[in-house]
Amino acid sequence: MYEGAVQDLIDELGRLPGVGPKSAQRIAFHILSADSDDIARLTQAIVEVKRRVRFCDECGNVAEEERCRICRDPRRSAEVICVVEEAKDVVAIERTREFRGKYHVLGGAINPMDNVGPDDLRISELMTRLADGTVTEIILAMDPNVEGEATATYLARLLGAIGIRVTRLASGLPVGGDLEYADEVTLGRAFEGRRLMGN
Amino acid sequence: MYEGAVQDLIDELGRLPGVGPKSAQRIAFHILSADSDDIARLTQAIVEVKRRVRFCDECGNVAEEERCRICRDPRRSAEVICVVEEAKDVVAIERTREFRGKYHVLGGAINPMDNVGPDDLRISELMTRLADGTVTEIILAMDPNVEGEATATYLARLLGAIGIRVTRLASGLPVGGDLEYADEVTLGRAFEGRRLMGN
Repeated sequence: MYEGAVQDLIDELGRLPGVGPKSAQRIAFHILSADSDDIARLTQAIVEVKRRVRFCDECGNVAEEERCRICRDPRRSAEVICVVEEAKDVVAIERTREFRGKYHVLGGAINPMDNVGPDDLRISELMTRLADGTVTEIILAMDPNVEGEATATYLARLLGAIGIRVTRLASGLPVGGDLEYADEVTLGRAFEGRRLMGN
Repeated sequence: MYEGAVQDLIDELGRLPGVGPKSAQRIAFHILSADSDDIARLTQAIVEVKRRVRFCDECGNVAEEERCRICRDPRRSAEVICVVEEAKDVVAIERTREFRGKYHVLGGAINPMDNVGPDDLRISELMTRLADGTVTEIILAMDPNVEGEATATYLARLLGAIGIRVTRLASGLPVGGDLEYADEVTLGRAFEGRRLMGN
């Protein structure tokens, strides 16, 4: 519907995740009327990310050097590895300030519907990291959904076979939530994982 | 939370309209892992829009030349001008294929809360277009909200004073909608604007 360049931009924006045709149009018009310096900063940020950012050789997290900030940090314990699906999950866990070990980013979860099997994930890289015996515990922090559960079960079996301590993040009622509105699976998990008080 | 370049990109994306922190992060990660050629096409599209696209000297619509595609089209009637708030509205009306006249884009609506008054809109440009007497009808196609109504009322008074025929798009029940779910203002308008059947 639009003339050449505007339509091209709407098409390109529409390929971004979560950007529908209406948002793409809205963003294109914003770019059209915005200050040129602001837009230059946006394109520069895109170019810089593609140029400078890579994935950590060790854990698969985003990095600007061979190893990411966390893998380079000598204050982080090398004995515990928290395994996550995506680099975004690293940031979510870092925000809690609860975990002082290192990470391993799988790059997804086992999902037969999307043809993602164990070989498509960074599992062999994880096994390599365990070879020297430094790591004593693996915390599985997959998403609490079908794909995450399948991945966790697969990894627990694999890691159990080499005799490493494997733990999984607790499932249960979200803090600040309302018991009445919890779905039955979550509530079931909360019962299963109940803890002795005064412990 | 992220290292330099990734955080810079998330910040820049977060400035786009309708892109919250979560979407900005999601888009940034998409850009990070996407094929470099795809991303080059996106940045190129942004650069091209800023370089090639301008606003039509006559109607204010988006254009790649001095006058937009519609103003240049000799098959479009020069006797009727449809006045809209934004260039996006031109596209919405063009999709109906109902209107064969020309447009005038105001660049917004009167909105005292945002300090937008008549002088901030392209109203004097509209008056200039009416000077030679070619235009016989002005169709007001502002948004059916408070700001749109205020703008339409203002323009109707201004244009009525120079003796031009001014019409306004009908308000009423949306086609395919359910009477039961129509809000009271819309339903009231539908009554007001009721038409004689078999007319």
